[in-house]
Amino acid sequence: MRQVGTGEFEGAAAFVDGDFVPPSEAKVSLFDWGFTRSDATYDVASVWKGAFFRLDDHLDRFFASLSKLRFSIPYDRAQVREILHGCVRAAALQDAYVAMVCTRGVPPRGARDPRLATNRFYAYALPFVWIAPRDKQLAGIDLHVSRRQRIAPASVDPTVKNYHWLDLVMSLHDAYDRGADTSCVVDGQGRVTEGPGFNVFVVKDGVVRTAADGVLHGISRKTVIELAARLGIPLREEAVPAADLARADEVFLSSTGGGVLPIAKIDGVPLRGPFPGPITTRLYDAYWALHDDPAYADVVNYG
Amino acid sequence: MRQVGTGEFEGAAAFVDGDFVPPSEAKVSLFDWGFTRSDATYDVASVWKGAFFRLDDHLDRFFASLSKLRFSIPYDRAQVREILHGCVRAAALQDAYVAMVCTRGVPPRGARDPRLATNRFYAYALPFVWIAPRDKQLAGIDLHVSRRQRIAPASVDPTVKNYHWLDLVMSLHDAYDRGADTSCVVDGQGRVTEGPGFNVFVVKDGVVRTAADGVLHGISRKTVIELAARLGIPLREEAVPAADLARADEVFLSSTGGGVLPIAKIDGVPLRGPFPGPITTRLYDAYWALHDDPAYADVVNYG
Repeated sequence: MRQVGTGEFEGAAAFVDGDFVPPSEAKVSLFDWGFTRSDATYDVASVWKGAFFRLDDHLDRFFASLSKLRFSIPYDRAQVREILHGCVRAAALQDAYVAMVCTRGVPPRGARDPRLATNRFYAYALPFVWIAPRDKQLAGIDLHVSRRQRIAPASVDPTVKNYHWLDLVMSLHDAYDRGADTSCVVDGQGRVTEGPGFNVFVVKDGVVRTAADGVLHGISRKTVIELAARLGIPLREEAVPAADLARADEVFLSSTGGGVLPIAKIDGVPLRGPFPGPITTRLYDAYWALHDDPAYADVVNYG
Repeated sequence: MRQVGTGEFEGAAAFVDGDFVPPSEAKVSLFDWGFTRSDATYDVASVWKGAFFRLDDHLDRFFASLSKLRFSIPYDRAQVREILHGCVRAAALQDAYVAMVCTRGVPPRGARDPRLATNRFYAYALPFVWIAPRDKQLAGIDLHVSRRQRIAPASVDPTVKNYHWLDLVMSLHDAYDRGADTSCVVDGQGRVTEGPGFNVFVVKDGVVRTAADGVLHGISRKTVIELAARLGIPLREEAVPAADLARADEVFLSSTGGGVLPIAKIDGVPLRGPFPGPITTRLYDAYWALHDDPAYADVVNYG
């Protein structure tokens, strides 16, 4: 693979068909099942102040997702890591959103057997993406709790990070129509699942709760769970009825797109506690402090 | 829009960004929500012996799907029709699979509001695609009845033709692993829904049944329902338990990719009746005879 120079595609860079390219050339065939059947998986790692955060965890999950969807790519783990570093280097980004993607590809003409397709691998680095911009975070994110149902695990395995998002997109439409900032959806029993790009946590009487299953097992979610244990904050992974959100002392989101994000309002109504709440603030601070821990940092090779 | 010549891109042709192009140039951005969120809709019409079949019905459904997902495209119905004719003309196809596609597009950098994206329109014509090749149809299609569940209507509206297909793709893997030819999936109550690209019909004691809801309302499904009424064959749209498939006298599929397709076996076990069954055969013959009816034909403008 060609060694790419620092800032070769300043601002954003992609890896397509074995080479680094500007984002305008980052395209997938209209005939790739990754598009026509959303037959794809992906993962997103973040780079903060020049270092990947928990890249190994993202690589673990990505390779597990590949296996679950029976994908194979011509790169091993070390090579994927090199490609991701190459994208960040080529984009000359200190803070970045870094995606790795695998699609089924295009089966031979006339064939409908997914086993016959050559799977495709893509990667790209963009400037860091926030679930909500900083000013909105400070002003207080208003979360719409949609009655729309997340696609059930019996249909699509939510532990495989996937692009089946129309349920989430339509809940975002609802949210913006109401003047809210983002949304989360429920399961068939009316329990909170996740939102577009994040897991959801509720805090009540000092106890943190988040959905145990039917959701993506986010790396940021995992970080929050580990930090709560380290800080002695009680946390339970269990089903959370959607109605509990409005009754909570604190609500926060976890996402690679911003870490721990405090919620100020549920469907326009402020939460009763102070904003941001004390437990959210402890986890927020611990989340960002963890970025200084060398055990979680993979310093970008800017060449 | 440029007038495209007959056979300009022989074999297949696409329409992207306002111009006709060879299929190798038919690509969607990796950043388009149509890919990263499967936030897209599409429709597929067929051309048989130089004429579109029921193109008006496909256009009706496509424009209804656009509206349901809040998409808008810069082409009206007459222009989309012209573009589809242009693709078939440029590909010089007598029998074709003709797709129209709309994606959300890419919102401005940093924005997560789908209302801010400029929606994108694509179209293409390929040689006619069969759900199963002719030799397999004659030998007898073996249908695997998967226990996997189709994405529920509470999550994604199945009447909007969409690319949320991982459930169907994984059921196809199961089917090929077992030596079957294709597959169908069920709903949360174990009732037959649909398969990858087709609706499913069962025949027992002279009565035809097919799922009423939770499925795509296929144009071929509609054709079968209309033909059954015309031929005096009793047909009921109602929930069909999956177990009824193996007990049926006849089973057939309906699809733009082949019309009425008789099934010979369910999970490797031949159906008890003759193959192909008498009701399936009547509907099969009527389906293809309908292609000679000028009311349903839109003769391709080969220029």
